[in-house]
Amino acid sequence: MTGAEPDEAMAARVRASLQRQGMMATLGVELVAIERGRVRMALRHDERLTQQHGFLHAGAVASVLDSACGYAAYSVMPPEASVLTVTYTINLMAPAAGLRFTMTGQVVRAGRTLVVCRGEAFADDADRPFAAMQATLTALHDRPGING
Amino acid sequence: MTGAEPDEAMAARVRASLQRQGMMATLGVELVAIERGRVRMALRHDERLTQQHGFLHAGAVASVLDSACGYAAYSVMPPEASVLTVTYTINLMAPAAGLRFTMTGQVVRAGRTLVVCRGEAFADDADRPFAAMQATLTALHDRPGING
Amino acid sequence: MTGAEPDEAMAARVRASLQRQGMMATLGVELVAIERGRVRMALRHDERLTQQHGFLHAGAVASVLDSACGYAAYSVMPPEASVLTVTYTINLMAPAAGLRFTMTGQVVRAGRTLVVCRGEAFADDADRPFAAMQATLTALHDRPGING
Amino acid sequence: MTGAEPDEAMAARVRASLQRQGMMATLGVELVAIERGRVRMALRHDERLTQQHGFLHAGAVASVLDSACGYAAYSVMPPEASVLTVTYTINLMAPAAGLRFTMTGQVVRAGRTLVVCRGEAFADDADRPFAAMQATLTALHDRPGING
Repeated sequence: MTGAEPDEAMAARVRASLQRQGMMATLGVELVAIERGRVRMALRHDERLTQQHGFLHAGAVASVLDSACGYAAYSVMPPEASVLTVTYTINLMAPAAGLRFTMTGQVVRAGRTLVVCRGEAFADDADRPFAAMQATLTALHDRPGING
Repeated sequence: MTGAEPDEAMAARVRASLQRQGMMATLGVELVAIERGRVRMALRHDERLTQQHGFLHAGAVASVLDSACGYAAYSVMPPEASVLTVTYTINLMAPAAGLRFTMTGQVVRAGRTLVVCRGEAFADDADRPFAAMQATLTALHDRPGING
Repeated sequence: MTGAEPDEAMAARVRASLQRQGMMATLGVELVAIERGRVRMALRHDERLTQQHGFLHAGAVASVLDSACGYAAYSVMPPEASVLTVTYTINLMAPAAGLRFTMTGQVVRAGRTLVVCRGEAFADDADRPFAAMQATLTALHDRPGING
Repeated sequence: MTGAEPDEAMAARVRASLQRQGMMATLGVELVAIERGRVRMALRHDERLTQQHGFLHAGAVASVLDSACGYAAYSVMPPEASVLTVTYTINLMAPAAGLRFTMTGQVVRAGRTLVVCRGEAFADDADRPFAAMQATLTALHDRPGING
């Protein structure tokens, strides 16, 4: 689904979309790295984002993994398209215990309108993920009021 | 998995666990109704919780649906158990456009340690859901530092 | 997504598509009932379809649930469209122990190209499902070699 | 979850369980390779296993991917445990068009009772998967009538 768009323009397009997400600011998400089909984000432990046992809430983990997958998909879409999540599945394999969490999103396969991505979440310096996502995103074209 | 626990004690147990979730306070979630195997929560539109097109972020929707499913499962677990989400799948069928969102969680079947629930999210007075969840929760027993 | 197509034409369209599936004949699937947005199928226990403990294999259960969801979606699509499964999630909540299994598929919400369905599988006369599915189907138009 | 079991004993344990699955014989599945945490299986195109457009049915693809994930999980479980699928999500990213299909299953993370795996399906010599699975398996202990 990629075209002749330079990598810098693609990265700027992703950053611009991310900055329009009030939710990412509320969570304090940082965009760490971006290349075509692959995005890495980070999130810090925060009392405001905990579940009942004091770990990071699955909802915060899922939000950032979903965004990492979404922007990985968006990075391979035509510049004029918008991206929406159709569905995702998340496995929470261990508590989100740590100070800093890294979330990666990666394109598995991009079709004409649907893109499938995988995401993984890591705590601090762990090399095994504590959460895994499989996500289906769609490219939208020419919808008034929807862009980015 | 239920026992002789009175409904009032069960409801108090759910409310106490919910109040320990920093994330639910950050999102501004309200617990609307609770009975055994069924929980209803509400969330208001908030600029701090938007995605790039101005709708409520899927992560906020998923967080509350996950909690509604989790507490529906918790309501049928023995009082001394803790509840954790193993995995869920969410379908986002339409943008979360509205002022107030109602999220329901309901037990489909409760096994010895695993409970499967379904969740649905509705905008304002809509009778068709804009999001649907299928979630797998687990009961934890006797884990130090984990309760509720 | 429905039009002016009579119910009989819709049901005939579903039956014609089902009869082209070699897999459904191999499994011995029976189409029990069909209305717009809702399909019920049946399957018998068969030594050829077992898993290692002698129960019906999850793959057989999933195949029929997927078809029930697929045809529920197909029943609300325009007559000229084809249906394909994009993704599904299945929970296997108890062993498929019984003689005859009933699988239902039902539309949750139909959008312009994507339809979300839920499926449930029941053993014999049980009223609680032993398996639950959440499926995403897509309508295809004008693809050479793809119809039904 | 692994112990001191030699690799040959583990592989023999997997093969013995697979041979008890009537479904795998009906589908004509071949076990290509097995190591701890990773299994590869193969399946041939067969008229008996098609969907309505003549491609391999998603149910056949899912059955073999589920088995590949299941045996990858089983390979890291204690020898006396049995394995059951709790839930999986499958994305069907392109039609299963080809003569021979390779399905891989791999452990992402193994916990005390739950194991999360990923599966991928490839047609002929393709290096991009046409289907992707994320599966949750459980280890069962001491259940009468359930072994392997």
